[in-house]
Amino acid sequence: MPLFQPLPGFQDYLPEALARRNHVFRLWRQTARAFGFAEYDAPVLEALDLYKAKSGEEIEQQLFSFTDKGGREVALRPEMTPTVCRMVGAKAGSLKRPIKWFSVAEFFRYERMQRGRGRSFFQLNADIFGEPGVEAEIELIALLIQCLAAFGLTAEDFSVRLSDRNLWMHYLQGLGFDEPRVHALLVAVDRHDKQGDAAFQAYTDQFGPLDPAAKAKVLAFLGIKGLDQLTAALAPAGNPALAARLADWRKLLDSLAAMGLAEYVAVDLGVVRGLAYYTGFVFEAFDRKGDLRALAGGGRYDDLVQKLGGPDLPATGFAIGDMTFELLLEQRGLMPALVRAADLYVVLGGEAERRAAFADIHALRAAGHRVEYPLRPLAFAKQFKAALESGARLALIYGADELARGQVKLRDLAGRSEREVPRDQVAAAVRDFLAGA
Amino acid sequence: MPLFQPLPGFQDYLPEALARRNHVFRLWRQTARAFGFAEYDAPVLEALDLYKAKSGEEIEQQLFSFTDKGGREVALRPEMTPTVCRMVGAKAGSLKRPIKWFSVAEFFRYERMQRGRGRSFFQLNADIFGEPGVEAEIELIALLIQCLAAFGLTAEDFSVRLSDRNLWMHYLQGLGFDEPRVHALLVAVDRHDKQGDAAFQAYTDQFGPLDPAAKAKVLAFLGIKGLDQLTAALAPAGNPALAARLADWRKLLDSLAAMGLAEYVAVDLGVVRGLAYYTGFVFEAFDRKGDLRALAGGGRYDDLVQKLGGPDLPATGFAIGDMTFELLLEQRGLMPALVRAADLYVVLGGEAERRAAFADIHALRAAGHRVEYPLRPLAFAKQFKAALESGARLALIYGADELARGQVKLRDLAGRSEREVPRDQVAAAVRDFLAGA
Repeated sequence: MPLFQPLPGFQDYLPEALARRNHVFRLWRQTARAFGFAEYDAPVLEALDLYKAKSGEEIEQQLFSFTDKGGREVALRPEMTPTVCRMVGAKAGSLKRPIKWFSVAEFFRYERMQRGRGRSFFQLNADIFGEPGVEAEIELIALLIQCLAAFGLTAEDFSVRLSDRNLWMHYLQGLGFDEPRVHALLVAVDRHDKQGDAAFQAYTDQFGPLDPAAKAKVLAFLGIKGLDQLTAALAPAGNPALAARLADWRKLLDSLAAMGLAEYVAVDLGVVRGLAYYTGFVFEAFDRKGDLRALAGGGRYDDLVQKLGGPDLPATGFAIGDMTFELLLEQRGLMPALVRAADLYVVLGGEAERRAAFADIHALRAAGHRVEYPLRPLAFAKQFKAALESGARLALIYGADELARGQVKLRDLAGRSEREVPRDQVAAAVRDFLAGA
Repeated sequence: MPLFQPLPGFQDYLPEALARRNHVFRLWRQTARAFGFAEYDAPVLEALDLYKAKSGEEIEQQLFSFTDKGGREVALRPEMTPTVCRMVGAKAGSLKRPIKWFSVAEFFRYERMQRGRGRSFFQLNADIFGEPGVEAEIELIALLIQCLAAFGLTAEDFSVRLSDRNLWMHYLQGLGFDEPRVHALLVAVDRHDKQGDAAFQAYTDQFGPLDPAAKAKVLAFLGIKGLDQLTAALAPAGNPALAARLADWRKLLDSLAAMGLAEYVAVDLGVVRGLAYYTGFVFEAFDRKGDLRALAGGGRYDDLVQKLGGPDLPATGFAIGDMTFELLLEQRGLMPALVRAADLYVVLGGEAERRAAFADIHALRAAGHRVEYPLRPLAFAKQFKAALESGARLALIYGADELARGQVKLRDLAGRSEREVPRDQVAAAVRDFLAGA
């Protein structure tokens, strides 16, 4: 019988791989907590309807969906946003606002296989509910930057490109496009970076050829890379709503600059995000060298909680994926060597000494020390070899002679010094050695 | 539109609930590492065939299985053992033995809903591969006990009942039963604790009435609660294999006693475990009061790695479930209050002071401190109320007067004392306060 394999696109995490993933998750969690976000978790499986017509076409086509034994249409979650909206929507009355939540969780999309992409992957999701102002974006973009910078990445390694679906909609409506056409054009803008002119094909198929003058304006707008340029393109003088929106832009950029984060942030109207539910500021984090997929993305989705049956609750959030991010850390040499080492290794003279050592072995482990010993009888030389391989700094030697004197030998494996301690002082001697050495 | 709900049997983890789960997982991980186990993780979704005819009938009927977009028969994992066997089987040649691995992971079974049971749940799984001797069971049962004792549970709260499928098979074959009948009788023994005499119905349906004398012997054997009683029932004198097996039993019980764990362990031949793949020692941990389901279960499964296409590799392992265990901790008052508190709260005089404070807020968070501030403009009194509610011990006050002098006010929220520090010394003052206070 051939050996079973993991399914295509799914990954086994052997201890070395899991240590890398755990390192990433640990720093993400620590950073999100420093920013005052509370961790939540949620089911892996949800009602299929939660994603239909909300997540956008691309995600819908990639769902792992099926009918369960109770006849329910269900899906493995492809993203966290609909779930966290459902959760917050149910408890909105009892939660103190602003609600600042984060999670580190697994997601599933049936995608074509490629580098930096699996059918299962993990994301940090961070969201703020109940804050309609740009103060939520300030907090979230600062958190996003710190979640990458905490690993040693700098503004030379990545940038956060900032855009605004609200302004895009205003601009396109100003050019005379109706809502379905605006939607189709935003899809084209989203794809333009990768597909160039072909990005407009879906629009053309649906609504006929795009007027060349209008198309030139769309291309000029998506090429905007600065706030002055944006202000000029919009001519907001006569429009108080537009002027207020540009004031939000200035507040956002000035606040991030006040935090010392200006060099991480770039205005880039070419970003609009594929997900269907965004309504305001949107942003993506990219590797500066540009050969990897987006590291992270997010934006404001003020309508989604209500669309899922909850109260009217403004919301902004982002997600960082683990796969592209781990690739970037590896490329930059920022993934540390994660060594799992024992604290001490117990060397056993024989089976009687094994029995005698068991009480200390268990007590030392219960005290939190990492203790290894040979499960099988092993010659002394092989035990000392195993002790060195275990990474332990200390060996405890239970020999017949020492035990007869009520003693145990302590060997400092690095210093190669030895001394005997009375058996009832083993725990204290180990604690002192590991704390002090 | 009605608000979306989690699927029946699935749980939303709001921050308070997740803090409890994280507390349990943290102590489990710490304990497993102290015993020298390395953490791994694995896909949530596996090929359906991995479970068919290996996990046992009950689990097979409860699988969340479906056909994926590539036409593969797949299932959400109902347990970890087949997966970890597949993983270890693929790498057996390159892994140092004994292989001591653990994971904390989520599982899925479509079960009838009841207390202490969901359709999704988590388990700690710990396994030793490559050690055929009882030394593996000694290590695993000691770990299992410490994984419960680490929370403050004592031998008055739970016990580990120890049995032996190997001896059961020997005993039943000695009574003249062939393999299919032995299997059916072990199913009856497994159910006897809950169903009493009705547990034998499936046997009778399949093979006709059970001879009353044989049945009396089976009932007597499953009633065995001690090693002397077991030795007497088996009359091992003329049988070297049986004598060696009973020597293993003594070694196991003596070793656990040497660790100080005797009072946690009880011989109980009534335990045989439902899973089909067990071959030797089996054990379950139970609440002493007996009103909860089994807390944990495990045993030896020496054939499974090979059955899944891997090498001949002896294996023993156990799993602790999270739901019954959390119920027990709550019942015993052993679930601590898990308070999430900020380290410091930043009080802002106004919008200019907010801008001025941003650099310090971001730097303090990047240094790992948990910093909160009001996202919206808020009166001083309300900010101090929010500071107290945040659990912070320290408030940093950015007022116009202080900033004009290049100073920031530090208020000790518990001690209610205040002092000013120069702005360039804020980070050091905060660090000293939080470390020293």
